[in-house]
Amino acid sequence: MSKPLISTAAPARWPDENPPVSLIGGGPGAWDLITVRGLMRLQAADVIVADHLGPTAELDKLVDLRGVEVIDASKLPYGKQVAQEKINQYLIDFARAGKKVARLKGGDPYVFGRGFEELRACAEAGIDCEVVPGVTSAISVPALAGVPITQRGVVHSFTVVSGHVPPGHPKSLTDFDALARTGGTISIIMGVKNGPAIAEALLDAGKAADTPAAVVQEGSTAAEKAVRCTLGTLGETLVRESIAPPAVIVIGEVAGL
Amino acid sequence: MSKPLISTAAPARWPDENPPVSLIGGGPGAWDLITVRGLMRLQAADVIVADHLGPTAELDKLVDLRGVEVIDASKLPYGKQVAQEKINQYLIDFARAGKKVARLKGGDPYVFGRGFEELRACAEAGIDCEVVPGVTSAISVPALAGVPITQRGVVHSFTVVSGHVPPGHPKSLTDFDALARTGGTISIIMGVKNGPAIAEALLDAGKAADTPAAVVQEGSTAAEKAVRCTLGTLGETLVRESIAPPAVIVIGEVAGL
Repeated sequence: MSKPLISTAAPARWPDENPPVSLIGGGPGAWDLITVRGLMRLQAADVIVADHLGPTAELDKLVDLRGVEVIDASKLPYGKQVAQEKINQYLIDFARAGKKVARLKGGDPYVFGRGFEELRACAEAGIDCEVVPGVTSAISVPALAGVPITQRGVVHSFTVVSGHVPPGHPKSLTDFDALARTGGTISIIMGVKNGPAIAEALLDAGKAADTPAAVVQEGSTAAEKAVRCTLGTLGETLVRESIAPPAVIVIGEVAGL
Repeated sequence: MSKPLISTAAPARWPDENPPVSLIGGGPGAWDLITVRGLMRLQAADVIVADHLGPTAELDKLVDLRGVEVIDASKLPYGKQVAQEKINQYLIDFARAGKKVARLKGGDPYVFGRGFEELRACAEAGIDCEVVPGVTSAISVPALAGVPITQRGVVHSFTVVSGHVPPGHPKSLTDFDALARTGGTISIIMGVKNGPAIAEALLDAGKAADTPAAVVQEGSTAAEKAVRCTLGTLGETLVRESIAPPAVIVIGEVAGL
């Protein structure tokens, strides 16, 4: 176990109430946007199973990594589903071997992060597992680039959408027609590839072409790149600016504030 | 300035890049669900202007309060708008007096938190101000009570709604008819009082009465109380269980997982 690097006036829950497996939201990318609880769990871990998003690239700023086994889950071989099963098995196997396991994920574990699947896999194996919520990119990345997801008198709601499936696809679970009319801000993650199709669907549903929009790539990191546009120009903006994942797309009046 | 209580392997941004005013998301309530950056800002502050939500009740676990001025913004006199103007003025006045100001808010500063108004007020006064994103209650409170806001194959979106204005009210900015049909999870904050009316509006819009729902009061704290019900029984559940703010209401299949 690494030397604890944090102290607070009352570390009440650390390390005694630390279950064998912690699913930790690492936040949008900057190392210091993880929660204090998440940091404490990392520092108490024997094994860290990390995604490529979140603060993984700066893990050494959070934890003294000597004596800690770090597994890069993004480098696991085989297809996505096999990799997920392999991750679940790692969590279970290490926990059964008496190790404290920190499963570090980007953003929040339950915002399109498969966190609940991992929690369930542990539960089915009889392993006690907790979730440590994180700062989601869908809200924090626009915020750090100057776009508030809500503003008084402008919106009373916002919708976070995973853009990994395009509108009209048989596997799509989102009614983009309804989405266009909620009256709230729309924040899209994992939507770079399908961004133009999503913009088209929202325009087709009657959302105004001059609705402000913003795109933030690699938000919260030194590589951050932010572009403002409108819903009507969103598709061409994504292409022209060569926007690459990870990026957050915000559509709504708040993007024009 | 209080003695710094945190150290990490590389506190790169602390304290030198600490602007005069930091708007800090304190998370849902538990003291250790603030971010590391938020904690560092609190520990570097000369003045903390705190709301009654978030980790305010446990501030002494985060900061050595000797020598720090703590202002309870929830106890400011007069109406809401006057109180907000007074808060803005505090931030500006303390910053002008050369103090480091930490403005601690519950949840995330930009999720119905008036954070952007405070940032703007500072900007208009020529005061450098940053936002430090926080863990929003809308996602984390259900998560800690066992309800994931998303689940693969179940939803590709979720909408966070402020329930402080009832459906049909002249000041309502949310189309509840569209909201009922997005296909995603609905998470309502500040909706205890208007919860029954919101449930009615969603039912009127055709959302199934047997849609799972969950209510979590004072989530993440020792006083947490969670109840599962359905959209059809949500209104009566809020009354029968004497649910009081702060509470988060989740409506959607994920509440039945």
